[in-house]
Amino acid sequence: MRVVRTVEQLREAVGFMRRTGQGPVGLVPTMGYLHEGHASLLRRAGEMCGTVVMSIFVNPIQFGPNEDYEAYPRDEQRDLELAEREGADIVFIPSVDVMYPRPTRTKIAVSSLTTRLCGASRPGHFDGVTTVVAKLFNLVQPEYAFFGLKDAQQVAVLRQMVEDLNMNVEIIPCPIVRERDGLALSSRNVYLSAEERRQALVLSRSLQEARKAVEEGRAETAGEVRELLTSVISGSPLADIDYAEILTFPGLEPLEGGLPLTGAEGEIIMALAVRFGRTRLIDNIIFTPKEVAALV
Amino acid sequence: MRVVRTVEQLREAVGFMRRTGQGPVGLVPTMGYLHEGHASLLRRAGEMCGTVVMSIFVNPIQFGPNEDYEAYPRDEQRDLELAEREGADIVFIPSVDVMYPRPTRTKIAVSSLTTRLCGASRPGHFDGVTTVVAKLFNLVQPEYAFFGLKDAQQVAVLRQMVEDLNMNVEIIPCPIVRERDGLALSSRNVYLSAEERRQALVLSRSLQEARKAVEEGRAETAGEVRELLTSVISGSPLADIDYAEILTFPGLEPLEGGLPLTGAEGEIIMALAVRFGRTRLIDNIIFTPKEVAALV
Repeated sequence: MRVVRTVEQLREAVGFMRRTGQGPVGLVPTMGYLHEGHASLLRRAGEMCGTVVMSIFVNPIQFGPNEDYEAYPRDEQRDLELAEREGADIVFIPSVDVMYPRPTRTKIAVSSLTTRLCGASRPGHFDGVTTVVAKLFNLVQPEYAFFGLKDAQQVAVLRQMVEDLNMNVEIIPCPIVRERDGLALSSRNVYLSAEERRQALVLSRSLQEARKAVEEGRAETAGEVRELLTSVISGSPLADIDYAEILTFPGLEPLEGGLPLTGAEGEIIMALAVRFGRTRLIDNIIFTPKEVAALV
Repeated sequence: MRVVRTVEQLREAVGFMRRTGQGPVGLVPTMGYLHEGHASLLRRAGEMCGTVVMSIFVNPIQFGPNEDYEAYPRDEQRDLELAEREGADIVFIPSVDVMYPRPTRTKIAVSSLTTRLCGASRPGHFDGVTTVVAKLFNLVQPEYAFFGLKDAQQVAVLRQMVEDLNMNVEIIPCPIVRERDGLALSSRNVYLSAEERRQALVLSRSLQEARKAVEEGRAETAGEVRELLTSVISGSPLADIDYAEILTFPGLEPLEGGLPLTGAEGEIIMALAVRFGRTRLIDNIIFTPKEVAALV
């Protein structure tokens, strides 16, 4: 495994792998503080690609002024051990100066998809994500790029960018990885106190209950599902709901009020963002109501 | 010369040239209605590249609602003759549906550089340019891309985009091509009446006079140059000035008021946009005042 820190080293390392026939190249962009979710991305990349590049970069321009950029957890040594164990061939760890030698004047913005969910709560966040991911795509020129579905909106936004800009890369969405008790893995889980950690289970539990209610016909409309989610989450006194939404996926459009969910075409997403103290957690389930309806 | 109209044909044609060792690939993006300015870009590309790709696409998203998108002159047959004569290997002529199979939700925006000159007069114009050029770069993946310096601000904006997004292409700016009487070549010159055409010479003439005044020490500051440009242009009764500016190049920053131009570091641009009836013409001169000062 090669660890590279400059643009020149990265291009040279990827170029060598290509010249020696070790394609296709897969990119796993991360902000580090790696966990089993990231490991699952590396393994999936390893199955599909001859060369797996992982980037570790806490991207300042996707953090708002009152967010946790400075506090975001970092542990390079542990990250490198995980990357090596899970088969990364090249790990790119740039400094902020390497990625932004001067303040970027160029931004990539995806409209519509970014107005809801985390886009509404974190203005400018997705512009920062699309811009840095486009930079990484240009630097690595991967055939495939791997992203976890915990950030489902990010997946939808990046797919839109790739399609709209005719980028030569395929986005591969990978399933959410959870602790055994259901909590979705996140580098931010480290912020949680023991009591917050216990109550944070309400995210996955409320999503499971809502899905079950749709399956059993106890919740028929988006409004009913939203009420159910909200009422379950409110049972946890430390939980402060940022949003609890039911939208189409990947279009992220609202479902018509009167429509029974089981009548919706294609996939829908139930998505949550909930604060515990200063820690904001997200989780979601994507499913096809028609298939659920067929099972009933 | 191959003429291709779909994304698939384009990728196949460029891929063939690459596989058969006919690189590097040069791209000459145009809106068609080709003239000797475009021909000079093709010749420059031919000197540097094994494969020259020209695109002809009148890009709707870079036109404002009251601009000349519908009226923009088109003549595919004549364009193809010129492209063939000047050595294009592949000509890409997509329809609007090929470039935008659905309305694009993704925009690339360059800040700061786009607030002045044509950016101020044509809001959204440069977002349309950067977005379509990024698409063309992704489709063709050229090593070099050739742009005329008549659109000097476009060159500055595209260079910024390429640098900020780590794009794998070098922008090659090419000199303005003029009629023998000095008028900068433009597809829009066809709009001019005989009298407008005659009076339009005031653009190049005023720029030459302003440059001479700087050389001879008769105009020392940006304000004095601006006054001189304005007063010369006002001598043409049909001329309606949109802007007459003196800025740094490629930064497009204003020069400090009191600074004699000959003290400015690096290059400066004198840039004009002038309307004749419904036709808006632009022209500019880029030069290094220090070199001018050294000549005096």
